[in-house]
Amino acid sequence: MTTSLPHRTGEVALTLLGPDDRPLADRAVTVAQTRHAFAFGNIGFDFVDLVGGPTPEGVDGDFGDAPGGLDLDRLGELWLNLFNTATLPFYWGGYEPRRGRPDAERLTRTARWFAERGVTVKGHPLVWHTVQPPWLLELARTEGLDEVERLQRARIRDLAGGFAGLVDTWDAINEAVIMPVFANGDNAVTRLARARGRIHMVRMAFEEARAANPAATLVLNDFDLSSAYECLIEGVLEAGVRIDAIGLQTHMHQGYRGEEYTRDVLDRFARYGLPLHLTETTLVSGHLMPPEIEDLNDYQIPEWPSTPEGEARQADDVARHYRTLFAHPAVQAVNYWGLTDQGAWLGAPAGLVRSDGTRKPSYDALEGLIKGEWWLPPTGMRTGPDGTLTVRGFHGDYTVDGAPFNIAPGRTTRTVRTSDAGPPAAGPIVIG
Amino acid sequence: MTTSLPHRTGEVALTLLGPDDRPLADRAVTVAQTRHAFAFGNIGFDFVDLVGGPTPEGVDGDFGDAPGGLDLDRLGELWLNLFNTATLPFYWGGYEPRRGRPDAERLTRTARWFAERGVTVKGHPLVWHTVQPPWLLELARTEGLDEVERLQRARIRDLAGGFAGLVDTWDAINEAVIMPVFANGDNAVTRLARARGRIHMVRMAFEEARAANPAATLVLNDFDLSSAYECLIEGVLEAGVRIDAIGLQTHMHQGYRGEEYTRDVLDRFARYGLPLHLTETTLVSGHLMPPEIEDLNDYQIPEWPSTPEGEARQADDVARHYRTLFAHPAVQAVNYWGLTDQGAWLGAPAGLVRSDGTRKPSYDALEGLIKGEWWLPPTGMRTGPDGTLTVRGFHGDYTVDGAPFNIAPGRTTRTVRTSDAGPPAAGPIVIG
Repeated sequence: MTTSLPHRTGEVALTLLGPDDRPLADRAVTVAQTRHAFAFGNIGFDFVDLVGGPTPEGVDGDFGDAPGGLDLDRLGELWLNLFNTATLPFYWGGYEPRRGRPDAERLTRTARWFAERGVTVKGHPLVWHTVQPPWLLELARTEGLDEVERLQRARIRDLAGGFAGLVDTWDAINEAVIMPVFANGDNAVTRLARARGRIHMVRMAFEEARAANPAATLVLNDFDLSSAYECLIEGVLEAGVRIDAIGLQTHMHQGYRGEEYTRDVLDRFARYGLPLHLTETTLVSGHLMPPEIEDLNDYQIPEWPSTPEGEARQADDVARHYRTLFAHPAVQAVNYWGLTDQGAWLGAPAGLVRSDGTRKPSYDALEGLIKGEWWLPPTGMRTGPDGTLTVRGFHGDYTVDGAPFNIAPGRTTRTVRTSDAGPPAAGPIVIG
Repeated sequence: MTTSLPHRTGEVALTLLGPDDRPLADRAVTVAQTRHAFAFGNIGFDFVDLVGGPTPEGVDGDFGDAPGGLDLDRLGELWLNLFNTATLPFYWGGYEPRRGRPDAERLTRTARWFAERGVTVKGHPLVWHTVQPPWLLELARTEGLDEVERLQRARIRDLAGGFAGLVDTWDAINEAVIMPVFANGDNAVTRLARARGRIHMVRMAFEEARAANPAATLVLNDFDLSSAYECLIEGVLEAGVRIDAIGLQTHMHQGYRGEEYTRDVLDRFARYGLPLHLTETTLVSGHLMPPEIEDLNDYQIPEWPSTPEGEARQADDVARHYRTLFAHPAVQAVNYWGLTDQGAWLGAPAGLVRSDGTRKPSYDALEGLIKGEWWLPPTGMRTGPDGTLTVRGFHGDYTVDGAPFNIAPGRTTRTVRTSDAGPPAAGPIVIG
């Protein structure tokens, strides 16, 4: 375990008690990490069909179809091995393609599947101008923007309130910088943003979601990492809107942007004193998208293969990028955008797993960090004469002989009672 | 006179009275425009040395030295023939190179020279991160940012208050979008903006200036015309800061950006319902600056000549650009950035007059609009039997047989008493 990341690590002084409440002195025990506190995330879009059931007839799938060649067990194994935070799709157009008939059941089942496996579930996004249902634009034309705003507010409340307890993290609003001037398709949300202003839209998203789920972590999310986003954030904060995290997208289909660029971006956005969520992270294992493409959606090619050289580069890029992000104290979450190449956004070979279900070098590289360099595997240790034991590790959940404890920032103390005098323990109880 | 610009023109029904207060029936009169209401501006930096006196020893001149080959009479004639609004330099570094010894006298003399000739005087800028006095950065290092802010506030009050009545239009803050992340030179204002935020800086500039001169027209000015500026404006307005005009710089050293681009920019910024001031307009009559230059200041070449082809292109560009701006109802002011090439910013052949004092085709083109197509020259007209006369023209000041009246938006009525029964009149008196 590296110790060069003081902001990611802590130290806990454990006192181990036996079932009789007496300290377990000079006892050999096994300590193991079970979860990172840091959010290592990925999208879970593929699981909606596999867990929730097939896409209803007449509805476009959100992003991917079912991932070729992988059943739920295998896909789940690959996913759960690395990630602890799942982003699920709540695009208005996919979620409510017919007005008044939202896809709540499939999403609920999928969210539960993740939650039951200890995964934090995040919803994406409550407000966005893309992937809109066609009926909404029609409604903007016939009934006007007040009605659009009323329905948008109702949608925010329904989702944030209806999924509270199951989905407690939301991209409250997506890409507000471009929202009022978005020119790649007429839509009701852009019309509303143009008429009422960005801050009105942001306030609407956060205030409605906050009211419906006061415990939620609400993220302002954007791909625009220029001064424009800084100006928006400053305006929003000045307007008194409480935001919980600043979301930074980094779809790097045009190539890894490098450590210097990344650190500069993190420093610029860290100065608002809010946690940074790297919400959408992509690095491809094939050729790079030409730099002159401005809207990534405009790049449509029949096939975008993963190549051996591309996979080697991607593995290197992924490791460099995650190291840079994990090293920055303001970063609280990194979400990769897709596990397999099958059905990946833009058809890009952006997955960590090939279309045939085999692991790419990038998967191994990420595993080497998340479950290697930054992880405490089952490790034999010994308590002192007073039954105490000091464990240093990355913030997160651990067990000692099966009894859970956690490592938080700084130096903490915990008393752990095991149900058995010796390993392996079962039925652990935690005190204090 | 063209009539395709309804937002720029009005109609006035004049009743002409003789010295005996009786209508002047069926009288031949001469009507002439004397001034545009629209602000056709230019910088008056060259006049500071010529009118105010030479730059004090040990102080860098602001932009130009005295314009080669032109004395005050000739330069003044060329300037006053086209423009009615002068921007004067109040850069902190040039205005107060030694702490506590501002260049108020020379600036006052220069401002008076313009004001006495019917020219509106504008000051540029109260807050900016460039052209700073070196002592201010030193002070930031030794005494901290609170002291920088205190001095910045004092400077705003001193200028806005001290020049009130003479300079009533100010670029209150310049380039706030880049201000906190400006990387082309350490300075105290960038440090302050980075620590306190853009909206804090904007509020400081506007509120101090407003308090010191409640009658002032205060402009938010920027070269960044992207969504970043929109976001800043939305944040500032949401924060309740009152701004009087949105300033848009358009230094087009890299080529004219075209009507479509310009109209799009004007429409985007017009949606805030505030007047637009095209504060800094430049079009060159030589080769174009390469497009890969990001900060125009980085392009330093020993000589940048004006060429015959360049001058033809510039004349065309100037006419197209001014037509586009004048046609847009939200535009209230257009300031060109420099009259002659001598001492022009970046050494660029951006003037309307060559270094040797001769007029370029762009000067003639602009004259053809400001004093031609959009102007009512002395014109013979005749009153009716009741002494009335209807005049249509561009908003501005006029005379009828030497007696002044004006044309305002819409349809107005005016009674004008002339001191003489027939032309030419002298000593006019206006009633109502």
